[in-house]
Amino acid sequence: MNGAESLVRTLATAGVDTCFTNPGTSEMHIVAALDRVPEIRCVLGLFEGVVTGAADGYARMTRKPASTLLHLGPGLGNGLANLHNARRANVPIVNLIGQHALPHLPLDTPLTSDIEGIARPCSKWVRTSRNSANLGSDAVEAVVASLTPPGQIATLIIPADAAWSDGGKVAALPVLPRAAVPSGEAIERAAAMLRSNARTAILLAESALYGKGLMAAGKIAAATNAKLLCPYPFARLERGLGRPHVERTQYVLELAIDQYKEFRQLILVGADAPVAYFAYPEKSSVVAQPDCKISRLASARENCGRALEMLCEALEIRDVSGRDDPLERPSAPTGEITLAGLAGVVGAVLPENSIVVDESMTSGRGMMASTRNSPPHDWLANTGGSIGIALPLAVGAAVACPHRRVLCLSADGSGMYTLQALWTMARENLKVTTVIFSNRAYGVLKREFAGLGVGEPGPRAQQMFSIGEPDLDWAALANGMGVPATRAENLESFSKLLRHGLDSGSPSLIEVRV
Amino acid sequence: MNGAESLVRTLATAGVDTCFTNPGTSEMHIVAALDRVPEIRCVLGLFEGVVTGAADGYARMTRKPASTLLHLGPGLGNGLANLHNARRANVPIVNLIGQHALPHLPLDTPLTSDIEGIARPCSKWVRTSRNSANLGSDAVEAVVASLTPPGQIATLIIPADAAWSDGGKVAALPVLPRAAVPSGEAIERAAAMLRSNARTAILLAESALYGKGLMAAGKIAAATNAKLLCPYPFARLERGLGRPHVERTQYVLELAIDQYKEFRQLILVGADAPVAYFAYPEKSSVVAQPDCKISRLASARENCGRALEMLCEALEIRDVSGRDDPLERPSAPTGEITLAGLAGVVGAVLPENSIVVDESMTSGRGMMASTRNSPPHDWLANTGGSIGIALPLAVGAAVACPHRRVLCLSADGSGMYTLQALWTMARENLKVTTVIFSNRAYGVLKREFAGLGVGEPGPRAQQMFSIGEPDLDWAALANGMGVPATRAENLESFSKLLRHGLDSGSPSLIEVRV
Repeated sequence: MNGAESLVRTLATAGVDTCFTNPGTSEMHIVAALDRVPEIRCVLGLFEGVVTGAADGYARMTRKPASTLLHLGPGLGNGLANLHNARRANVPIVNLIGQHALPHLPLDTPLTSDIEGIARPCSKWVRTSRNSANLGSDAVEAVVASLTPPGQIATLIIPADAAWSDGGKVAALPVLPRAAVPSGEAIERAAAMLRSNARTAILLAESALYGKGLMAAGKIAAATNAKLLCPYPFARLERGLGRPHVERTQYVLELAIDQYKEFRQLILVGADAPVAYFAYPEKSSVVAQPDCKISRLASARENCGRALEMLCEALEIRDVSGRDDPLERPSAPTGEITLAGLAGVVGAVLPENSIVVDESMTSGRGMMASTRNSPPHDWLANTGGSIGIALPLAVGAAVACPHRRVLCLSADGSGMYTLQALWTMARENLKVTTVIFSNRAYGVLKREFAGLGVGEPGPRAQQMFSIGEPDLDWAALANGMGVPATRAENLESFSKLLRHGLDSGSPSLIEVRV
Repeated sequence: MNGAESLVRTLATAGVDTCFTNPGTSEMHIVAALDRVPEIRCVLGLFEGVVTGAADGYARMTRKPASTLLHLGPGLGNGLANLHNARRANVPIVNLIGQHALPHLPLDTPLTSDIEGIARPCSKWVRTSRNSANLGSDAVEAVVASLTPPGQIATLIIPADAAWSDGGKVAALPVLPRAAVPSGEAIERAAAMLRSNARTAILLAESALYGKGLMAAGKIAAATNAKLLCPYPFARLERGLGRPHVERTQYVLELAIDQYKEFRQLILVGADAPVAYFAYPEKSSVVAQPDCKISRLASARENCGRALEMLCEALEIRDVSGRDDPLERPSAPTGEITLAGLAGVVGAVLPENSIVVDESMTSGRGMMASTRNSPPHDWLANTGGSIGIALPLAVGAAVACPHRRVLCLSADGSGMYTLQALWTMARENLKVTTVIFSNRAYGVLKREFAGLGVGEPGPRAQQMFSIGEPDLDWAALANGMGVPATRAENLESFSKLLRHGLDSGSPSLIEVRV
């Protein structure tokens, strides 16, 4: 067995069942090995940012690593921005990056680059395999590194000669590291804070935002009158009817400061204390009031869900009555396209058990409010702030959950970074309905320009914020990649197209001009 | 004057007249400064790989650095693959990368990353400015670094607080480093080789491939019967009627070895001895015969053009009669689309003084032969092997040379990496005619798979080489970004569309299915 086959068989044995790929010549032996191991599904992306963003989306939904397969340093480079986002999402990913055969490296041929150097800023674990005999055990270590709490990016660099040489050995996965539970003192400290009369918020992240952890948080909030918050950037939030309501921290610094003003106490569960996204002249970056007492129940590396259950027990909360949520869906608004109207339509239409991928930026601010009482669903956000993640993330979520419907909300500027993801949606016939909010601008920059006190933008600055002139025709772009697409001209047509897209069982795209 | 303005004014003073941009919040003060300095033209790209590839194309044609303006680490990451190519082209580029305000960095906010770490693998010079007073002098050092022979990538990282704080000082450019001329011994050694009877090739790169250097090489070849060669990856080659013929080293290793078999002597001018692009099991990566005597006339850092003129003088070559080139253009072939037919049409149509950007991969192998006697033109190739450079490079060449027509030849797989460049062509109304060779495959991988002796690709491997299913509709993609586009159904229609596109004075795209 050659090294490549031992690598791929080891990954399959370790439970890796998906490989998002964009290989080149130096990865051909790995491709040949994937040919022989049907346990791993291969999903091709036509650009590496699609591949890495898809691996992120897959991991957010499964908590398992997908692998990527990328071509040398430049291929990894193209995937770097979405690996940055994935790193901030604390998800497990195993990157497989080809390398020239080791004796070829000193020749410094055109595609030679410092792959480890490119990998390090986005990877917690980086290794270059030395030979075929090591590839299996290196792959196991990569999987273990990726699953080390809270979830990490592991990058394994595979010289072509290690892949093609005989002597490969399939390695077995050892017992995986498990997330620790917080200390009794941490639980007791949080319980004491919640027993006091001070107004308290609990800032949730990681596994505190879904499943048992979230339900425990809901019980605590109901019993203690604490408010549940999450950071503006979060990886995955379960929400909707019957789920505890978690309020997202505002993106705009002033609004976030207002939001946190009432709280005298803040309990952190998997999150850090909130700070401004960007720095502004003469402004502090800290969100909470200086006299707010901040205490950590659990770090991101600890078992946040279990921590909340333990806190429930410490507070002797047994059972809480459900929320009084309306059972009727609101009817979809009609008329001209407005941001509020679009949000209203999504709130009226969103199907049960769907996954919403949200990079709607300035156009989608009302989306979370309008879907608060929709049937239960998951919401995925941009964790690292590098735009161009929504479409790839939707690919990964749809591959991970083939029976769920994915609604992908993307700003036009963001969508353009990784629009190649549409082709993968078409090839894999993924159940993704993409909505492009076309304001023909980097809207957030217009606002930030003002917020930074830089003055009025002149004509040249305005040209750098405008992405019209010429206008993008998203229906043409999507059709060009095999995804049926239409522009919605009013809210009625948006409702109809959205329902139809979500029910179709295949990908579609709706452009709305806002 | 704030730091940002001192930075931008310094760049303008140093002769930087173009900034390819994709800025974000942390770069807003630099955008505001660009608003106030009309000497620098700003060209927006909707993806950073477009920005960096355009800076490469600009530099290849002007030998001057353009600047880029990119958003933090992820923005630089997205531009990395084409910076890799630019590094291999030895072109000057000054990257301006925003950074959070320094006091904001310890907060480790979502967009924080190791920007210097991301920059280093593709940059010869990296610096983070410390404060506004340093920005002007740092900018000057970046320009000097970029223009240090043979041309380098310089990356200046600009914390937001250095940009927005007062105290900026415009700095003046010192005397620039000049490329050294080779030693008398190097000249004499090459002259002695050429005076011998041994069959000799001269491998040219850098400034030996255009202008006076190339003309001197042509005289030497005519007088000594030496053969002129260039590496497979080259940055810029002047060619066509009246220009010395330079033969490109073959990409396929076996063909390259055959090509070099006859030579007993090889003189290197700005190039290294040829080696295989990739390593193959059981094969040597060296192209020249073991008994071929290899000697360097000039390194890439030396003045290659002047070296050839000095060699001419040493050989006492005065004047050489011109080549016997045909003066008549061949007529354009007609009939069904074939690769030879497409090459024939380009040979018949290519206008004088045009710039050809070539990433046509397996579909365009006949293009250089068919245009050998076309009117004089420049040819730009992929230097670093990271695909997705043609469209951005064409943007940069067209911005650099607004009066010249650019013919951009791109494979479909390559084009998909950076298709956003089409939008910039439309916005800037660039004279670029793009031809997409649509074979709906990563054709090179099919061949490499066989060449590596991996066996027959199975269905899963074939799915990773095919980029059909669904087929891309390039006319729709281009139209969606504002570039008029059509599919050529036969060679007559290709001729007509190509002539029309080149004569139109604005961008267009032609898809040909091959």
